[in-house]
Amino acid sequence: MTVKVEFHFDFGSPNAYLSHCVIPEIERRTGATFAYVPVLLGGVFKLTNNRPPMDQTAGVRNKSEYARIETDRFIRRHRIDKYAWNPNFPVNTLRIMRGAVAADMDGWLDRYVAAVFRHMWEEPKKMDEPEVIVSALAEDGIDGAALLERTGDQAVKDRLLANTEASVERGSFGSPTFYVGEEIFFGKDRLGDVEAEIAEASR
Amino acid sequence: MTVKVEFHFDFGSPNAYLSHCVIPEIERRTGATFAYVPVLLGGVFKLTNNRPPMDQTAGVRNKSEYARIETDRFIRRHRIDKYAWNPNFPVNTLRIMRGAVAADMDGWLDRYVAAVFRHMWEEPKKMDEPEVIVSALAEDGIDGAALLERTGDQAVKDRLLANTEASVERGSFGSPTFYVGEEIFFGKDRLGDVEAEIAEASR
Repeated sequence: MTVKVEFHFDFGSPNAYLSHCVIPEIERRTGATFAYVPVLLGGVFKLTNNRPPMDQTAGVRNKSEYARIETDRFIRRHRIDKYAWNPNFPVNTLRIMRGAVAADMDGWLDRYVAAVFRHMWEEPKKMDEPEVIVSALAEDGIDGAALLERTGDQAVKDRLLANTEASVERGSFGSPTFYVGEEIFFGKDRLGDVEAEIAEASR
Repeated sequence: MTVKVEFHFDFGSPNAYLSHCVIPEIERRTGATFAYVPVLLGGVFKLTNNRPPMDQTAGVRNKSEYARIETDRFIRRHRIDKYAWNPNFPVNTLRIMRGAVAADMDGWLDRYVAAVFRHMWEEPKKMDEPEVIVSALAEDGIDGAALLERTGDQAVKDRLLANTEASVERGSFGSPTFYVGEEIFFGKDRLGDVEAEIAEASR
């Protein structure tokens, strides 16, 4: 029996990107496959009354500096070599997250996720503007105009909202959040525990 | 060459207690000795404009529940069997932290730390009241009245303040904080990284 592993993500979260870089290693070592579940982080924050990490550390001495130290450690440890800060942060991700839902419905989420994470956190662009999205996705041979059209579908909008609400119902309050069976893990720094839980649950 | 390892703690922090339970295992495995550095957490919060974790999660859905899940996991993983929530939380720790400084100056910090952590988080008491402190420490054969007398010394007061300010200067913003050489680690969940850093630095 294989355990169900989920990665609840929003492209706007740098920690989701960094997790995305490490997930393939964990999949290789454990044989598990992470199901990518698009959720709208802004919606999660609204539903839980949580605030973005940036707001939480604003005005607190040493705290954001420490977060940067931990990010640097994570990048070094996992030999992540393409990460670049997106100068447009925070990017409104509503369109690209609806795009993820549409791509998921149409069976090509993997390809879309790889492309958009690259345009957000490797070759960063202002991915909340339709024309930027279209020209970025064109690089990957994706018809961005057709995809943006799809993001207007009520079924797509509803699915993103439903994913987000269901995630909060299960216990999410930020990004990235992982579920291994019924167990919740929050943050990129829990990936070691996620891997241990997969191993434990797969025994 | 052995690396300098420091544990900046306040008895009022349950996560400092939980770390204290695990430190002996790490010392055994690495051969390192953790220097216990008393700092006043209330002072750290004041100097950094940080707030207690409880205040940060107040009103945020799922966040305190998740913190509890992680605490339970930590307790299970490390087979900690004496932890008990202190119903008097938050306890004003000024007296017992000054007591730690006095005990440190007089060369018996280890014994004092073991006793006070027990009275805070194993057989919890309201350890901000002088009579409670005196009767609790009497169980350990410690003259609490003499110690409380010592906490009035200017040198003791000054040392706790100096420890606290120096800790914040180095990068602290909460409890527990660890230093391995120049590297800072925040929180009980970083103890695995602390151990790895000790091993790395001792090579």
